[in-house]
Amino acid sequence: AFTRDPNTGENVLYGNFLANAQGEDVVAGIRDAEPIVAMREHNPAVYAEFEQIARQLERFYRDMQDLEFTIERGTLYMLQCRTGKRTPRAAFRIAVEQATQPLASRQEVKRLVKAGCLPKRWASAAAKPVLSRQEAIARIRAEDVERLFYPVIDPTVPAEELQRRRLTRGIDAVPGAATGEVVFSAAAAESLAAAGRRAILVRKETSPEDVGGMYAAAGILTATGGKTSHAAVVARGWGKCCIVGCETLEIDYAANMMSVNGRHVRQGDRITLDGSQGVVYEGELPLVTPELPAQYHTLMSWCDAARRLKVRANADSPADAKAAVRMGAEGIGLCRTEHMFFKELGGGYSPEEVARRSQERQLAIQEMIVAENEADRRRALDKLLPFQRDDFVGIFEAMDGRPVTVRLIDPPLHEFLPRTREQVERLSAATGLSTQAIVQRSEQLHEANPMLGHRGCRLCITYPEILDMQVRAITEAAVRCRQAGRPVSPEIMIPLSIDRKELAILIQRVHQVADAVLAEAGVKLDYLAGTMIETPRAALLADELAEVCDFFSFGTNDLTQMTMGLSRDDAGRFLPAYVDPQTGIFPADPFQTLDFKGVGLLVESAIAKGRATRRKLKIGICGEHGGESASVAFCHRAGMDYVSCSPYRVPIARLAAAQAALAEKPAARSRRKRAGRVKKSPARTKRRPGSRRRSGRTRARAKK
Amino acid sequence: AFTRDPNTGENVLYGNFLANAQGEDVVAGIRDAEPIVAMREHNPAVYAEFEQIARQLERFYRDMQDLEFTIERGTLYMLQCRTGKRTPRAAFRIAVEQATQPLASRQEVKRLVKAGCLPKRWASAAAKPVLSRQEAIARIRAEDVERLFYPVIDPTVPAEELQRRRLTRGIDAVPGAATGEVVFSAAAAESLAAAGRRAILVRKETSPEDVGGMYAAAGILTATGGKTSHAAVVARGWGKCCIVGCETLEIDYAANMMSVNGRHVRQGDRITLDGSQGVVYEGELPLVTPELPAQYHTLMSWCDAARRLKVRANADSPADAKAAVRMGAEGIGLCRTEHMFFKELGGGYSPEEVARRSQERQLAIQEMIVAENEADRRRALDKLLPFQRDDFVGIFEAMDGRPVTVRLIDPPLHEFLPRTREQVERLSAATGLSTQAIVQRSEQLHEANPMLGHRGCRLCITYPEILDMQVRAITEAAVRCRQAGRPVSPEIMIPLSIDRKELAILIQRVHQVADAVLAEAGVKLDYLAGTMIETPRAALLADELAEVCDFFSFGTNDLTQMTMGLSRDDAGRFLPAYVDPQTGIFPADPFQTLDFKGVGLLVESAIAKGRATRRKLKIGICGEHGGESASVAFCHRAGMDYVSCSPYRVPIARLAAAQAALAEKPAARSRRKRAGRVKKSPARTKRRPGSRRRSGRTRARAKK
Repeated sequence: AFTRDPNTGENVLYGNFLANAQGEDVVAGIRDAEPIVAMREHNPAVYAEFEQIARQLERFYRDMQDLEFTIERGTLYMLQCRTGKRTPRAAFRIAVEQATQPLASRQEVKRLVKAGCLPKRWASAAAKPVLSRQEAIARIRAEDVERLFYPVIDPTVPAEELQRRRLTRGIDAVPGAATGEVVFSAAAAESLAAAGRRAILVRKETSPEDVGGMYAAAGILTATGGKTSHAAVVARGWGKCCIVGCETLEIDYAANMMSVNGRHVRQGDRITLDGSQGVVYEGELPLVTPELPAQYHTLMSWCDAARRLKVRANADSPADAKAAVRMGAEGIGLCRTEHMFFKELGGGYSPEEVARRSQERQLAIQEMIVAENEADRRRALDKLLPFQRDDFVGIFEAMDGRPVTVRLIDPPLHEFLPRTREQVERLSAATGLSTQAIVQRSEQLHEANPMLGHRGCRLCITYPEILDMQVRAITEAAVRCRQAGRPVSPEIMIPLSIDRKELAILIQRVHQVADAVLAEAGVKLDYLAGTMIETPRAALLADELAEVCDFFSFGTNDLTQMTMGLSRDDAGRFLPAYVDPQTGIFPADPFQTLDFKGVGLLVESAIAKGRATRRKLKIGICGEHGGESASVAFCHRAGMDYVSCSPYRVPIARLAAAQAALAEKPAARSRRKRAGRVKKSPARTKRRPGSRRRSGRTRARAKK
Repeated sequence: AFTRDPNTGENVLYGNFLANAQGEDVVAGIRDAEPIVAMREHNPAVYAEFEQIARQLERFYRDMQDLEFTIERGTLYMLQCRTGKRTPRAAFRIAVEQATQPLASRQEVKRLVKAGCLPKRWASAAAKPVLSRQEAIARIRAEDVERLFYPVIDPTVPAEELQRRRLTRGIDAVPGAATGEVVFSAAAAESLAAAGRRAILVRKETSPEDVGGMYAAAGILTATGGKTSHAAVVARGWGKCCIVGCETLEIDYAANMMSVNGRHVRQGDRITLDGSQGVVYEGELPLVTPELPAQYHTLMSWCDAARRLKVRANADSPADAKAAVRMGAEGIGLCRTEHMFFKELGGGYSPEEVARRSQERQLAIQEMIVAENEADRRRALDKLLPFQRDDFVGIFEAMDGRPVTVRLIDPPLHEFLPRTREQVERLSAATGLSTQAIVQRSEQLHEANPMLGHRGCRLCITYPEILDMQVRAITEAAVRCRQAGRPVSPEIMIPLSIDRKELAILIQRVHQVADAVLAEAGVKLDYLAGTMIETPRAALLADELAEVCDFFSFGTNDLTQMTMGLSRDDAGRFLPAYVDPQTGIFPADPFQTLDFKGVGLLVESAIAKGRATRRKLKIGICGEHGGESASVAFCHRAGMDYVSCSPYRVPIARLAAAQAALAEKPAARSRRKRAGRVKKSPARTKRRPGSRRRSGRTRARAKK
C-alpha cells in the first residue's frame, strides 16, 4: 500500500490487500486483491491504526511511503516501508501538498489522539506540513518535469500487443510518443501536414533543408546520429518526438521503403514512435496527452522565487517564441536566423502561401551564395531583408519587451545550396547561371571539416553585406515595434569569434548599421552587441573580447566539440565506449551534461577573465546544456546571469536553477549577496512592524 | 660596388665602375660598365683609398656594404652606403668569414698604415674579425638556410622566356623547382618514376592513398588547399617542390587534361614548377642545384654548440630517417605509422616488388577495417605486423640509438578504404565480402567532420588489437636491433588523447604488450610511453595526463585547428582575409607561425601543469611549427626539450634554436643554468691550467 495515490498524488491511502493470504500471493497475482479501503469494512480498528501508522511513517521519512504489512489474528504487523515510486504528476501533487497541507486536519488529529491512535507528542507535528517549500523543490526530478508535457502511448495497451508490434529500437532523442504515416522526404511531410494528416518523417539523417518537413511532421526517425545530431537538436527545440541512430533501419529512398530485419514499411504505412524509450512500433497505437496538474504551476512559481539564474529559451520563430513564453521563458537566449532562410515561419498564411514564401526565401539565399560579385550579393540579400524583418517583428511582439538575442548567420553556406536536380534548375532559371556552374559552385563550397570551416562570423568578415542585411532587418523590426508602442530589447550576437580584432571589426559594423537605421527613423533604442564563446581561443582570450562587447553567450555545443576534439555528429561511433561504465572514461555524455572538468574549466576561466575586464558583462549559455539539470547547476555556480534552452526544457531549467540556488552553502550565498549578484529574496525585505510570524519561505530559509 | 662578392661571399671588392659618367648611366645600362678592379689600373692611388674606405665602412657597420661613389678630378667621393643584398650561399660565407677572419692580414694592415691609407688607430681593429660567432649566427635568416637546399630555375633563363612560358600562379607550399611530365594520378606518377622518368603529379587535392605517387613524383601541383594541406605537409616532409591552391586550374581527370585560361596541358606534356614563387611554367626549364658552401657546416656547428633545444625530424621511413640524420636531426620526433599502411617504404626492392608489397599492405589494412569481428581483425593485423616491424627495424638502424618517437595509428579508418572500382573488387576477392558490402561499409565510415571523429587513440579504445599489433611491431623491431648489438631508443606515442583515464588505459596496454615481448626475448630495453597534446582538453588537463605518461609532444597542427576552430584544409577560403594587413586580425598564418596568444597560452600552461606533476617530463613539439623560426623561438622560451620538423627544415630549426638561445636575456639564461636546463657550454668548463687565452666562443660569450 502507498500512503498517497502514486498515480495522481492524491492524499489517500492507496493499494491492495488480500484477506487470508500472504504477500507472495498478491505479487503473483493468483487471486484478485481488494482495494485497501475495503479493509475498513473488514476491520475498522485495524484500518484506523494502519492509517495513523502510515501518517507517522510519512511524517518520519518526510515522503510518500510504500508500505508492506500483514494482519495476523487481528493484529497489524508492519513488514517494510520505503519511499514510494510515483508518476510525474503525482510527484508534483505530493511535493506541493506536503509543503502546504498538514498530514491531517486539526479536527482529525484531535479525533485520532482521542481514539488513542496517535500519541499526543505527535499531535502538533501531524497538523503541520511535512516539507518546506525548498524541500518540495528538491523532490522534483528533471524527468518529472519533462514527462509532464509529452503525449505517451496509452498505458492500457497490453504488453503483448506492444511486443508484437515492436519493429526496432534507436536512441531516445526526444521523449513523448507520436503516430502517423511514414514519409521519406521533408516535402512529403509538408504536403501530408498541409492535407491535415500526421506524418512520421523517416530519414537516414536530417539537414537544415529538411527543417520545414521536420516542423510539419508529428515525429522524426533517423537511421544515424546521436542525441545531439541535427535531428535531435531541432526536434528537441519543438518538443517533437524523435528517435535517432536507429542503425538496424535500412532506408531505400528510391523505393520509398524502409526495412528492419526483413520487415518492410512503405510510404503511407503507419508507425508509432515512443521517443521516451526509443522504440518504434508498427501500426497506429492510441496516445494520451497528460494534463498539467495544478500543483505544477504552484511548484514552478516557488522555483522562480528561489532561483537567481534567469531562464531563457532558444526560439527561431514567432510560434516558438510564444511557446517559450508559455513555458516560462524570460527572454530568448538564442534566435537562430538560418532557419528563416529555409522556411516561412510566420503564422497566418495558407499552406500554398507558406510553400511559395519558403521557396522565395530559399531562392534568395541561394542567389546570394552563387552571386559572383558584391553587387549581385547585395541584390539577393535585399530580397531576404523583408522576410527576416517580418520574422523579427513577430518574435519581438511575442516576447513583449523581454530580451531577444539574435545570432547572425552561422552555418557554412553550402548547407543552403540546392541539392535536387529540380532545385538546381529553379536556381538556374532565377539567376541565369548554367546548372553546371551551380553544381560547380556547390562543389567548390564543399569542406573537409565544415564544423571548423567557413562559417560563423567568418562569413561576415568575408561578406560583410550579410551582416549589414541582418542587422538592418533586426533594427528595422525593433523600430516598427517601438513605433507601434511596444517594448523591445534586442541583443545582437556574433557567432564563432576567435579574436578581439575580428570581433571589434564586426561589432563596430553592427553599431554603424543599427545606429544609421535608428537615426533615420528617429527612434531611440537600447540594444546590446555581444558574442558567443564557442571556440577555445575565444574562451582563452575572454578578457580581450570583453573589451569590445556587451555580453557573452557560451555556445557549449561547439565549445565541447572543439575542446574535446569530438564531432557530435560522428561521436556516436566511439563515445559509447567512453561513457561505458567498464572503461568509465567519462561520467556522462559530454553533449548531454557539460564536461565540467575540461570544458567547464574553460568556461569558468572565461567568465573570470571577461568580468575582470567588464564587471557587469552579461553572461549566459545557449548550448543544449542550458536545459540539463547538472549543467544548469554548474552555470549557477559559475556565476552566469542566465541559461537558455529549447522551450520544452525551460521548466527543467527553472527547476534546476532553483535547486542549485537552494543547494548552495549558506556562506557562498551570502558571499554572493554581498557582491550584489543575488535577487533580493523576501527573507531580506524588512519585516513589517508588528508582524510576528515570518512567512513560510522565510522560515525555511532561516532553518537551512 | 660591394665590399664582398654578393653572389659567392668571397672577400673581394665587387662591382662596376664607369669612367667619365654619372651613376645614372650605370643604372640605365647605356654603356657597359667595367669591373671595379679595372679602377686599379686607371688610378691605383684612388683604388687603394677606396679599398681601405670599404674596409673601414665594413668594420664600422659590421656587415658587407653596398657602396656608391664617384671620382671627380682624381678625388674619391663616397656618396652612399648600405648593407648589401646577398645570395644565401654568400650570406653563410660572409657571416663565417666575418667571424673568423680579420678584414686584412697583419702584413697588409701594416702596408696600408705605412701608405697612409689607414689611420693608425684603426690598425688593430682591422686585423681582427668583425663579428663574434653569436653575431654571425644572428646574421643568417631562415630563408637563407632553406634556399641553400633546393634546386632553382637556372638564373640565366631570360625574363621574357619566363614570361612567355608562365601558365599560372598558386601558393608556394614547398620551395625549389621541379620539371617533368604531367600526370593526373598517383599510379601514373609511380609507373613513370619506375621507368626512370620525372613526373609532375597534378591533382585537385591529395589524400593519403596518393602518398606513393607523391613520393615518386618530382613535383606536386594541386588546385586546392593551403600551405598546410595534405599535399603541402607531405611534400614538405620530403623537401619536394610543391605548389597548392592553384585555383585557376581546371582539371579533367577523365580527359587526362588540365586547362588554365584556355591553355590546355595534357598528360605527358612537360611543365616546370617554381615552388619558391608558386609559379607554373609550360615546358621544361633548366634547373640548377646549388652546392652547400663549406661555411654552412661551420656555422651550423656553431649553432649546435649555442642552442639548448634539441632538434629532431619527422620521418616515416628508413630513407626519411637517413635524410634526417644527414640534415643534423638528433632523433625522430614523429614517426607516423599510417603511411606504412599504403606504401612499401623500405629500400632494396625492385619497382614490381615495391608495387606488390604496397598492395599487400593496403589489402591487409582494408581487410582489418571491413572485418566484422575481432578475430578477423586480428588475422588481418597479423599480416601487417611483419611489414611494420621491418619498417621500424630500418628506421631504428638509420637512427643508430637516437630516440625515435613512434605515433600509433592516427587517421580515421575511411582514409584507408578502397576508392576505385578495381580496388573494391580486389578487396572483395581477398575477403569474400560482396563489393556491395564493402561500399556500404565505406559509406558507414563516412564522417561529417573527420578531424574530430573516430581517429587517434579513439581507434585503440574501440579496437585495442590495433594497438597490440603496433606496439608488438615496435618492440620486436627494437629487440632485433638489440640482439644485433645496435643501440635503440623507442618512444611510443598515443595521439589525440583527451583524458587521463583514457590515456591510462592505453599506456597500461602499451606496457603489457611491450613488456611481454621483451620478457619473451629476454631483452632489457628502456622505452618511453607518452602522448601527443593536440586537443585543448589535453592541454587543460596536462597535470592529470602527466601522471600516467613519460613525455608530451605538442601536435600544434591539430591543437591550432581545435583551439581556433579552423580546419586547415578549409581555411584557405577565409584565412587570407584574416592575415590581410587591412583587417590585420592575425599577424601571420597560424598554421605557419604558432598563434602565440591563443594556442601558445595553452601550450605554456600545459607545460607548467605537466612539469608541476612530473618535474622531468620530456616535452617536445612535432607540428609543422617545429621548423619555423619564430615558433622555434617560442618553444625555446616555453622550456621545451626539443622541436621536431620535416628533415628539410631541421637546419632552420637548428639555426632558430641557436638564435633563440643567444637572444635570451643573460639573466634568463643564468636562471635557466641554475635550474640545470642548459647544456654546459665550453665557457663553463674549467680553464686548463696555464692557458691564458680563452677560446673565441668563450670570449664572445663573455662579451655579451
